Amino acid sequence: MKYGYLGPEGTFSEAAVRKLTAARGIEADLLPMHSVLLALDAVRAGELEAAVVPIENSVEGGVSATLDALTAGEPLQVVGEEVVPVTFDFVVRPGLGREDVTRVASHPHGLAQCSNWLHEQFPKATLIPALSTASAAVGLLEDDAAYDGALCSPLAAQKLGLTPMYTDIGDNPNAMTRFVLVSRPGRLPAPTGADKTTLVVFLKDERAGALLEILEQFATRGINLNRLESRPTGDGLGRYCMSIDAEGHVEDARLSEALKGLHRVSAHVRFLGSYPRADGEPPHVRPENSNASFAEADAWLNSILSS
Amino acid sequence: MKYGYLGPEGTFSEAAVRKLTAARGIEADLLPMHSVLLALDAVRAGELEAAVVPIENSVEGGVSATLDALTAGEPLQVVGEEVVPVTFDFVVRPGLGREDVTRVASHPHGLAQCSNWLHEQFPKATLIPALSTASAAVGLLEDDAAYDGALCSPLAAQKLGLTPMYTDIGDNPNAMTRFVLVSRPGRLPAPTGADKTTLVVFLKDERAGALLEILEQFATRGINLNRLESRPTGDGLGRYCMSIDAEGHVEDARLSEALKGLHRVSAHVRFLGSYPRADGEPPHVRPENSNASFAEADAWLNSILSS
Amino acid sequence: MKYGYLGPEGTFSEAAVRKLTAARGIEADLLPMHSVLLALDAVRAGELEAAVVPIENSVEGGVSATLDALTAGEPLQVVGEEVVPVTFDFVVRPGLGREDVTRVASHPHGLAQCSNWLHEQFPKATLIPALSTASAAVGLLEDDAAYDGALCSPLAAQKLGLTPMYTDIGDNPNAMTRFVLVSRPGRLPAPTGADKTTLVVFLKDERAGALLEILEQFATRGINLNRLESRPTGDGLGRYCMSIDAEGHVEDARLSEALKGLHRVSAHVRFLGSYPRADGEPPHVRPENSNASFAEADAWLNSILSS
Amino acid sequence: MKYGYLGPEGTFSEAAVRKLTAARGIEADLLPMHSVLLALDAVRAGELEAAVVPIENSVEGGVSATLDALTAGEPLQVVGEEVVPVTFDFVVRPGLGREDVTRVASHPHGLAQCSNWLHEQFPKATLIPALSTASAAVGLLEDDAAYDGALCSPLAAQKLGLTPMYTDIGDNPNAMTRFVLVSRPGRLPAPTGADKTTLVVFLKDERAGALLEILEQFATRGINLNRLESRPTGDGLGRYCMSIDAEGHVEDARLSEALKGLHRVSAHVRFLGSYPRADGEPPHVRPENSNASFAEADAWLNSILSS
Repeated sequence: MKYGYLGPEGTFSEAAVRKLTAARGIEADLLPMHSVLLALDAVRAGELEAAVVPIENSVEGGVSATLDALTAGEPLQVVGEEVVPVTFDFVVRPGLGREDVTRVASHPHGLAQCSNWLHEQFPKATLIPALSTASAAVGLLEDDAAYDGALCSPLAAQKLGLTPMYTDIGDNPNAMTRFVLVSRPGRLPAPTGADKTTLVVFLKDERAGALLEILEQFATRGINLNRLESRPTGDGLGRYCMSIDAEGHVEDARLSEALKGLHRVSAHVRFLGSYPRADGEPPHVRPENSNASFAEADAWLNSILSS
Repeated sequence: MKYGYLGPEGTFSEAAVRKLTAARGIEADLLPMHSVLLALDAVRAGELEAAVVPIENSVEGGVSATLDALTAGEPLQVVGEEVVPVTFDFVVRPGLGREDVTRVASHPHGLAQCSNWLHEQFPKATLIPALSTASAAVGLLEDDAAYDGALCSPLAAQKLGLTPMYTDIGDNPNAMTRFVLVSRPGRLPAPTGADKTTLVVFLKDERAGALLEILEQFATRGINLNRLESRPTGDGLGRYCMSIDAEGHVEDARLSEALKGLHRVSAHVRFLGSYPRADGEPPHVRPENSNASFAEADAWLNSILSS
Repeated sequence: MKYGYLGPEGTFSEAAVRKLTAARGIEADLLPMHSVLLALDAVRAGELEAAVVPIENSVEGGVSATLDALTAGEPLQVVGEEVVPVTFDFVVRPGLGREDVTRVASHPHGLAQCSNWLHEQFPKATLIPALSTASAAVGLLEDDAAYDGALCSPLAAQKLGLTPMYTDIGDNPNAMTRFVLVSRPGRLPAPTGADKTTLVVFLKDERAGALLEILEQFATRGINLNRLESRPTGDGLGRYCMSIDAEGHVEDARLSEALKGLHRVSAHVRFLGSYPRADGEPPHVRPENSNASFAEADAWLNSILSS
Repeated sequence: MKYGYLGPEGTFSEAAVRKLTAARGIEADLLPMHSVLLALDAVRAGELEAAVVPIENSVEGGVSATLDALTAGEPLQVVGEEVVPVTFDFVVRPGLGREDVTRVASHPHGLAQCSNWLHEQFPKATLIPALSTASAAVGLLEDDAAYDGALCSPLAAQKLGLTPMYTDIGDNPNAMTRFVLVSRPGRLPAPTGADKTTLVVFLKDERAGALLEILEQFATRGINLNRLESRPTGDGLGRYCMSIDAEGHVEDARLSEALKGLHRVSAHVRFLGSYPRADGEPPHVRPENSNASFAEADAWLNSILSS
């Protein structure tokens, strides 16, 4: 069985896929993929059983490549999530010292998240963008390395045998990234009582009213949203769809009814899955929004209709 | 088969029950009842097949006795409605002339609705309250009549053989009363495409928020309300329930779902029936609130749940 | 100085006007008026300084005559309120005993509110409608009295020197009536921190959406409603205005802004006054709706506009 | 006078700053800046009069660096906007032919926006990320160029004297980028009737309800939103602020009142400016939300308060 992740080896994605498979007792070959889109397309094509990709970062926000790759193309299903704290190791070319560092490479997000630290430690260093934090580290070992230091994940440093000069780096100590486990559409994970549902909703027309109508489908049923991202549909400025994580499982009655409402009032809804929350925290559901309350309302209405 | 109506004979209620039974091709004995409550209790007890009672007047508003008698006690079901224009005849004791009139009787609502006319025609007359417009007319024929003239329905004047001194009286030319046909709970009248649904909703707690939540159940599904009356529950000032007529039939999906929502968010809902509108006017339903749209949303959700 | 009240002498209205004037240290001649409309028109004409009329009854609901007389005609202003418990005395013609009672008179509301009691105590008695509870009592003393007993207010029994056969009668022990003190428009009573504001709002068009918009003007500013009555405008079935009591004083910023919003979104607003609540209970105002919060927002906006 | 823009020379930002200054008849030195943050900080420090930076792209969405740099740090003010269509030229090292191209460089966004085109034209090419589209083009002229071709703006190709091998490239023919002209806080541009207001709103607590409350401040006053972006505050997953473009000018009464409402119900509001829309299109304002309607409501309320 093959599981993909956003490569190369040693990124935070690899850390996430290891945690997700271990928690499920899954033994799988873990394959680094060149991009989120390639990873998800390989799942679509059946070459991978599933893939782990980043969806949200506490500093940078939603990961556009993932949001967009889930929104377009053949349907996929999110079946799990994992949250990984984002701290960096600073590694250098073997043999170099602190005073030799004049050029530092990392993925632009890595450079951004360590911007203050870099400014303090290496104010004169030239910053070099790399395709990933891990490839920046790998590049240090090449003969013609174009830079002297790199910011990478602890896993990358460890796998490459590089002893970090500094560890636990990051301007924001709360920085973390959420990853999702994505497979082809199939059986929904059973409700656990602490679930999350991911959707993309395409609005019918202009902004304020249409978005209000979408949010009311959740609010009138007491459903909190954990994430709400607007993403351009690509049809022009100001044309957006909403990428949403809602509390609860589609098998919960309040979610079922909200999804049906969204289907009616929006241009299109793409359901992307219901799955257990990484933090295992159950939502606070008021009595009138419980499954029992919906079941009683159903029974009451049926007694009217069948009279 | 016996049909009751709010008596005595000759009131607007008798006019309404005649129209309602004729329209349905029903041959029934028509029995005047002493009060709305007695009429409805006789239906509850099986002594009457159905009863016709006033529910709403375009000048006075909701008819409290009817609203309250439908709200409390054994459940009943509204199965039809009729709207009757309210114009009065002015009748006098046989043999009297216009100059003999010093005391005029009618039901207080009749006196109120002809207040301007009385002020112009008989500015000095003493006004005498009667238990009904018809009983005021009947009283004229008694030996010891305590008054000289009465305002009554055209039907009452005709049945009593009284030639009106004036006809078509009423301060407001648009005045009309809506009557409902009430039976024991049973089979719902089939949807006609131009229906009305009557409900009583008991709010959970304080006013503004709770009422908003109730109205949102209708608004988010595009359901217009034809009537909305607050009625005290009798538990103290400021404790109310809402008496509501909504456009559509409980078998319409948008109504079904709204009713289930009301059942969840309110303290109690009493369903009082779905029945054809007297004016036969179909509601304007936007595509997203049509039965077809609800059916598509159901099918879509089922395809997710059954995967 | 002359104060009017809904007569005749001895009604609950007289009890209310006595409490209201006493509480204000006002010495005034108290004049019984024949109807609510006549009382209010005498205030409009300057013949009375003010009048006390019933506006809401915990059993019957809003008092239509008052609501309508405040809504139409020259503007008036509510400057105070009083709540009076509604219990009845049962009085008989002097000399009669319990077994002599075959006919009982009272105002129809009085008969309705003692309906169960009458049914138990005098199941065979004929019920006679009177123009008021007090006039029913007065009638007992006339030579040609058409009935034997009457239900009236304790004040009426006392003033007429009639010893009640039964006291503290009423089917609903919580029954009470709210009265308002009405004067010509003039200086607003100063805010006390526990105030009420009375309004009539004419909706722009059809029901559900328009009413929601009205309620949102209150809800988005955290204003609770103490009373909400729909009243027909008289233009046809289904045409209503809303009679509203809202928590707070028009000088409170949240009320000011809500009133301006109502003025914009409705067809017409009639402001009927801000005045101290009878129960002296201050509302619960969340920090964001306090006068201080509005003042800060004003200051912030002004700093932007004046830059 | 110095105007900055997101450099290097030849980017779409330079095209935008040229249009914005030309339209205003401004003669200024145009200085390329290394990053959005450096550009805006130079404005803050008074080293630049103003800067032009990208804020929104029709394919990629909001430009995080700009949104975040406007949200944090010393206040700045948006005083204008410009929309630039995004099409690319494909340029190669002088002397090379189509068959020599094995490595193609551009900014990652440029590579993403031409992804399909690249896949069709150069399916085997290695993609090289550059710090900007313009620097990718510049790199072609260096002796040790690490790639053979670049995707850059037409302006860059022209300024470098590179004859494009292909022009008008882009997977999405509607692709465009919106740029804003940013200065230190000062006088607001006067209302033109077709204006836009930019804000950042920090929510008070959890998602669904708080966001609804924010949107209602706009919706209840008929204000459309042209852009709505959630951005992480950096305090942890799920903590967001909203970056908003609303129709209208802060001097419009409906905007003034909405802003004051936002100030009350949110944790914090940062006002970022009101300025003329690039497309000059006036909003559709319903009568009840016009300045005249607000002025009438003010006058009406004042007549009550001053009585």
